[in-house]
Amino acid sequence: ELGAFVGNIDKIEPDYFRPFLFENGLMPSTWIVIRLDGCHFHRFCKIHEFEKPNDEKALNLMNSCAAALMEEFHDIIFSYGVSDEFSFVLKKDSQFYQRQASKILSVVVSFFSSVYVMKWKDFLPHRELKYPPCFDGRAVCYPSSEILRDYLAWRQVDCHINNQYNTCFWMLVKSGKSKREAQDYLKGTQAREKNELLAQQFGIDYNALPIIFRQGSSVFRVQEEKANGYGNGASVEKLNTRVVVEHCNIIEKHFWKEHPGILDESL
Amino acid sequence: ELGAFVGNIDKIEPDYFRPFLFENGLMPSTWIVIRLDGCHFHRFCKIHEFEKPNDEKALNLMNSCAAALMEEFHDIIFSYGVSDEFSFVLKKDSQFYQRQASKILSVVVSFFSSVYVMKWKDFLPHRELKYPPCFDGRAVCYPSSEILRDYLAWRQVDCHINNQYNTCFWMLVKSGKSKREAQDYLKGTQAREKNELLAQQFGIDYNALPIIFRQGSSVFRVQEEKANGYGNGASVEKLNTRVVVEHCNIIEKHFWKEHPGILDESL
Amino acid sequence: ELGAFVGNIDKIEPDYFRPFLFENGLMPSTWIVIRLDGCHFHRFCKIHEFEKPNDEKALNLMNSCAAALMEEFHDIIFSYGVSDEFSFVLKKDSQFYQRQASKILSVVVSFFSSVYVMKWKDFLPHRELKYPPCFDGRAVCYPSSEILRDYLAWRQVDCHINNQYNTCFWMLVKSGKSKREAQDYLKGTQAREKNELLAQQFGIDYNALPIIFRQGSSVFRVQEEKANGYGNGASVEKLNTRVVVEHCNIIEKHFWKEHPGILDESL
Amino acid sequence: ELGAFVGNIDKIEPDYFRPFLFENGLMPSTWIVIRLDGCHFHRFCKIHEFEKPNDEKALNLMNSCAAALMEEFHDIIFSYGVSDEFSFVLKKDSQFYQRQASKILSVVVSFFSSVYVMKWKDFLPHRELKYPPCFDGRAVCYPSSEILRDYLAWRQVDCHINNQYNTCFWMLVKSGKSKREAQDYLKGTQAREKNELLAQQFGIDYNALPIIFRQGSSVFRVQEEKANGYGNGASVEKLNTRVVVEHCNIIEKHFWKEHPGILDESL
Repeated sequence: ELGAFVGNIDKIEPDYFRPFLFENGLMPSTWIVIRLDGCHFHRFCKIHEFEKPNDEKALNLMNSCAAALMEEFHDIIFSYGVSDEFSFVLKKDSQFYQRQASKILSVVVSFFSSVYVMKWKDFLPHRELKYPPCFDGRAVCYPSSEILRDYLAWRQVDCHINNQYNTCFWMLVKSGKSKREAQDYLKGTQAREKNELLAQQFGIDYNALPIIFRQGSSVFRVQEEKANGYGNGASVEKLNTRVVVEHCNIIEKHFWKEHPGILDESL
Repeated sequence: ELGAFVGNIDKIEPDYFRPFLFENGLMPSTWIVIRLDGCHFHRFCKIHEFEKPNDEKALNLMNSCAAALMEEFHDIIFSYGVSDEFSFVLKKDSQFYQRQASKILSVVVSFFSSVYVMKWKDFLPHRELKYPPCFDGRAVCYPSSEILRDYLAWRQVDCHINNQYNTCFWMLVKSGKSKREAQDYLKGTQAREKNELLAQQFGIDYNALPIIFRQGSSVFRVQEEKANGYGNGASVEKLNTRVVVEHCNIIEKHFWKEHPGILDESL
Repeated sequence: ELGAFVGNIDKIEPDYFRPFLFENGLMPSTWIVIRLDGCHFHRFCKIHEFEKPNDEKALNLMNSCAAALMEEFHDIIFSYGVSDEFSFVLKKDSQFYQRQASKILSVVVSFFSSVYVMKWKDFLPHRELKYPPCFDGRAVCYPSSEILRDYLAWRQVDCHINNQYNTCFWMLVKSGKSKREAQDYLKGTQAREKNELLAQQFGIDYNALPIIFRQGSSVFRVQEEKANGYGNGASVEKLNTRVVVEHCNIIEKHFWKEHPGILDESL
Repeated sequence: ELGAFVGNIDKIEPDYFRPFLFENGLMPSTWIVIRLDGCHFHRFCKIHEFEKPNDEKALNLMNSCAAALMEEFHDIIFSYGVSDEFSFVLKKDSQFYQRQASKILSVVVSFFSSVYVMKWKDFLPHRELKYPPCFDGRAVCYPSSEILRDYLAWRQVDCHINNQYNTCFWMLVKSGKSKREAQDYLKGTQAREKNELLAQQFGIDYNALPIIFRQGSSVFRVQEEKANGYGNGASVEKLNTRVVVEHCNIIEKHFWKEHPGILDESL
């Protein structure tokens, strides 16, 4: 039996892989974004009884996975998540896996999926994970920090629009309307009208809803001074880097000015 | 606060995604192979105390994940696994995710990772999963079934060569040699010499080692007649499709002739 | 002045090219087709007073360029041309420019353009070439000879459909209709109706029109026995390879069976 | 005969092209460079008896083709040429052919080749064009104007290094050395040594050689005020745009500051 193996070794092409490989070098000196979305999460949320319109525990699980990813892969400098979606930004000159799209994409998606399952019981302790969650992903490159910020702003605007719609929709459903009726009711309404609906019909001040629902979650590193125990001013201060999850406006320039280190192109 | 959002909506490009997307259509009418490898599994095996040279329980976990993948994604028609590596073959005319490389790659890798964590305790009940496992992946296309079979044969030859080497290496280490000494000892030895070393020094008949170590694992569907309970021959027989894990020679044509349905190009 | 140069040499990245290069490996073991089309040839034909619906001299110039290309680049095994379009088929295992799309595409298009200008006066001696002709091109890969033949058949069907339409259109225009009227007249007519129009209104038997107009032009190599001058049968016969231009049905299998060497995959 | 055609029309896939097309979208908001090189120009120069080390007439022909290209394709904003090589820079937000690499590449190469043949007799009137010249091309994208300028600087440094070497080499050959001897003689020499060789052995001041040889050729547009003939200040002044060929230092920032319109990213 072994003979057959050995006899065949010589016949085998030494490189039957690379020439057939899907080519995938991401352009140097551009911002790589890996965008990850839950697959069929409509069904996943239903079967796992996620709260509607937003399940804060499930969102915190997503954020915790993103933070773990940033602890593991230092080239990811910023992440933005909303609902079952997360965007991971790699630094512009990252050489992570020599910028091969398939490698970067697969390790991000694989690690995120593993952590999601491992941390499930920490965030949703009383709910059994009934089947394996699955995320799909894609790689995008942005040639300038302006376009990158536009992309992130677009995701946050989307978060707002979807959240406003979903809040109205589920309030209508909880108040007795069918899903179809709720849908028809909202068709064509403007942002202002939706806010009025929430205020007048349900006594909800949209702007008072938890900020995580309205602005999504930004995950990034901050540096903090390490207490050094010495009373006199001559101490050598060291900086600690910590990954934080915040819910802030990333559309306005303000955020980026306050955190110049994130997209610092001079580094 | 909302005002800022709404004011910005109009400024946002409606399609800030597609033009920057890493392009990824896989050629129609070709065999797509998604190849998945454990990331830094050298360390992962060590920390989780996998048996050397092969940990049968860990291999069975891998195989079980592959089988689960094939239950989930029907376009995968054959899988071959060895060590921490698995190759998944999609049917030639698959339209799974419109043949977009990034989507197919990411869902395969994500689902596999989730299942691996979920099933861990079933296969390795007394060992704690200490950190999230991670797999990277790549997509390859083969234009003909001949080249596809050559690829799979190459993987199985590799399985054999690596297993033979690893078996020798770990026997030498277990017998008291340092890893460096074992490596030097084996440098340049031929297949026959390695087999003689195992036989003479350690009393091991290489060909009697478990076939899962020597031939890797093939995962595929078989159809079986459903028992129908009627005594008379006029019963309507239905076919059940079942995913099986086997350890067989896929280098020789014999296997493919016995399972003509797997690569059947006439379908 | 030189000093500035020399001082800068060291600062320059040695490889400021490859990482930014548009990636372009064409899949091994597939049929590469380079398809070339005249740019803005509507205007080019008008300014150079090409006969309508077909200018046989201009078609012969195109064919002559294709033949010259096949004399120059031996990896091109078949070409099919119609109107201002030509498709060049490279052999399946061609290693021409290591199968880099941009190199193959550019040399084919460049050589064709050069020859077109050089040969212009031979085919259209009494018409001045008033401005540089320009052709665009694209690369396509086909994984099997069946799909390749389907592509070529599609081009020949297109040739027929366009020629039939154009013949009707220009006969109507020459008979006094405006272009708009001719267009409206033909809208929605079937093949049979167009043939009847030609026969009844203009006394033209479509099938009697020059075959180059109806079937386009196929350019390929034929082998012919070299006359060897010796009367006795013991002579050593040598084969000469010659590029020929023919106007034949390449939709039916007949052509490919009569010329088995063209797509011979066993070579 | 027609029957066979018509009968087949329905069987033909309506879109047997796009799915198999070599994918080729160039990233938006990046500088596209089409780089063109003469194919086998060593032989082409020899057969057409180009002067060595530089044939000024042949260089002027190249420059004239580049200028014609810029007159034709307005998205090309800068070109740099040396020897048988030319780089064409498209503006960052060009939508030329929807940024499809193969279309842009092929029309640039095709047009250049056509013009080269058409203008040959104007620049080299006493030399017959003996066979069709051929150029290959590639597409590169640069995400920032800094990297684009680095690329162009690299080409100009290369021009200088090659010219200095070639000037020495051909002076040695003309003085009686064989090509091999000249090569050996120059191996490992520094820039300064080559200049000394030229000065001392051949009485040549390198920096006094024609600037077109030392700095290559830059082709770009300049705007000039149109004389309007009216003496009083109330005249409407119009700007004329003109393509110019200059031989200037594009390594230093000076050039780009003097011509801010070329790479103006604010437009």
